[in-house]
Amino acid sequence: MARNLGLDGGVDVADRIRVEAAQLFHHRGYGMTAIRDIAEAAGISSSTMYHHYRNKQDVLFAISRQFMTDFNNALLPILSDSTRPHQERLDAAIKLHLTISNERRTELLTIRGNRGALSLDQLRTIVRLQTAYQRAVREVVAVIQGSGPVDAELITMALMDLINGVCQWFAPSGSLTIDEIAERYLRMARSLVSGGVPPRRATRMATPG
Amino acid sequence: MARNLGLDGGVDVADRIRVEAAQLFHHRGYGMTAIRDIAEAAGISSSTMYHHYRNKQDVLFAISRQFMTDFNNALLPILSDSTRPHQERLDAAIKLHLTISNERRTELLTIRGNRGALSLDQLRTIVRLQTAYQRAVREVVAVIQGSGPVDAELITMALMDLINGVCQWFAPSGSLTIDEIAERYLRMARSLVSGGVPPRRATRMATPG
Repeated sequence: MARNLGLDGGVDVADRIRVEAAQLFHHRGYGMTAIRDIAEAAGISSSTMYHHYRNKQDVLFAISRQFMTDFNNALLPILSDSTRPHQERLDAAIKLHLTISNERRTELLTIRGNRGALSLDQLRTIVRLQTAYQRAVREVVAVIQGSGPVDAELITMALMDLINGVCQWFAPSGSLTIDEIAERYLRMARSLVSGGVPPRRATRMATPG
Repeated sequence: MARNLGLDGGVDVADRIRVEAAQLFHHRGYGMTAIRDIAEAAGISSSTMYHHYRNKQDVLFAISRQFMTDFNNALLPILSDSTRPHQERLDAAIKLHLTISNERRTELLTIRGNRGALSLDQLRTIVRLQTAYQRAVREVVAVIQGSGPVDAELITMALMDLINGVCQWFAPSGSLTIDEIAERYLRMARSLVSGGVPPRRATRMATPG
């Protein structure tokens, strides 16, 4: 999508466009932002803008894909690091998930609030990236809590909802810092993973495979 | 907002409009639905439609307010029922929260996905209703886990994210029924409330009040 032409700083310009666009989409709304506004905020001409992205939807998609790619590049190696115990991998992943979500909150809320504006193909690409992450979490959860795949899946979804919720309400001006929240969320996540396992009998009944 | 004129079944018509509109907003999208489409789906004339709601935004607001009012009318008495122990109240509230969210999933997803389409005043009304519920949950959580208000608040937000997440991914055709999920979520919620309490020393440090 982003074409690096080696002009105007090449990839740097594409980066800058995404950063400025995410700010505008977040604060002004996706529908209220024109491609011209983005070019202006990035300090480039409209024609340079069109060298990089064909339209506003492409910019939104680029923001979404870049975020999810960076996110997976950071998180997947932790989850699959066979030199560490599974609980330690999950703890590290949750902490980093919270940290990235906080540091890149504007992008994340932009992506989450405008999924409906992507094309079906674009959405499929994003969902594929998200699924890769969820699968990696599920595999670690399954080992830690040792029950069937249905429960590992359920607990993974619960964990995702828990962790993804934070960036919707976290205010840096609040009573707790993001590190204090992360500390508490690690404890909650541990309880969730152990507490979500049903008694043996119930598991067998509910898990077909 | 909804004016009961005693015509065409009065309140029943307003109900029917909301039900049909929620379906259309959910399946076709709020932006893609015309007031005419809603009237047609409800089997009424456009002029009858305008007796009840001035415009599409009013219909969306009516859907949101009706849902949150019904929700609070069902949930608040449970949370404040002084004849029951606090843990029992929370358990019952979580179970009913999940049940209502499942039964009225179309409305709920419509409301959640179109908050930006409400006017600021309308949004304030909805947020006020949501806050009343969250405050009631927080008061019960505070008694159960017995730590400071900051942690009760954090655990309440975590609980809300956990429970509200279900209707985004729950599929009736999946491996677990909503009752089986509710059973597991009750256990997870219990672990969350007990697991979210930080060790005494940390609480004192992090809780100013």
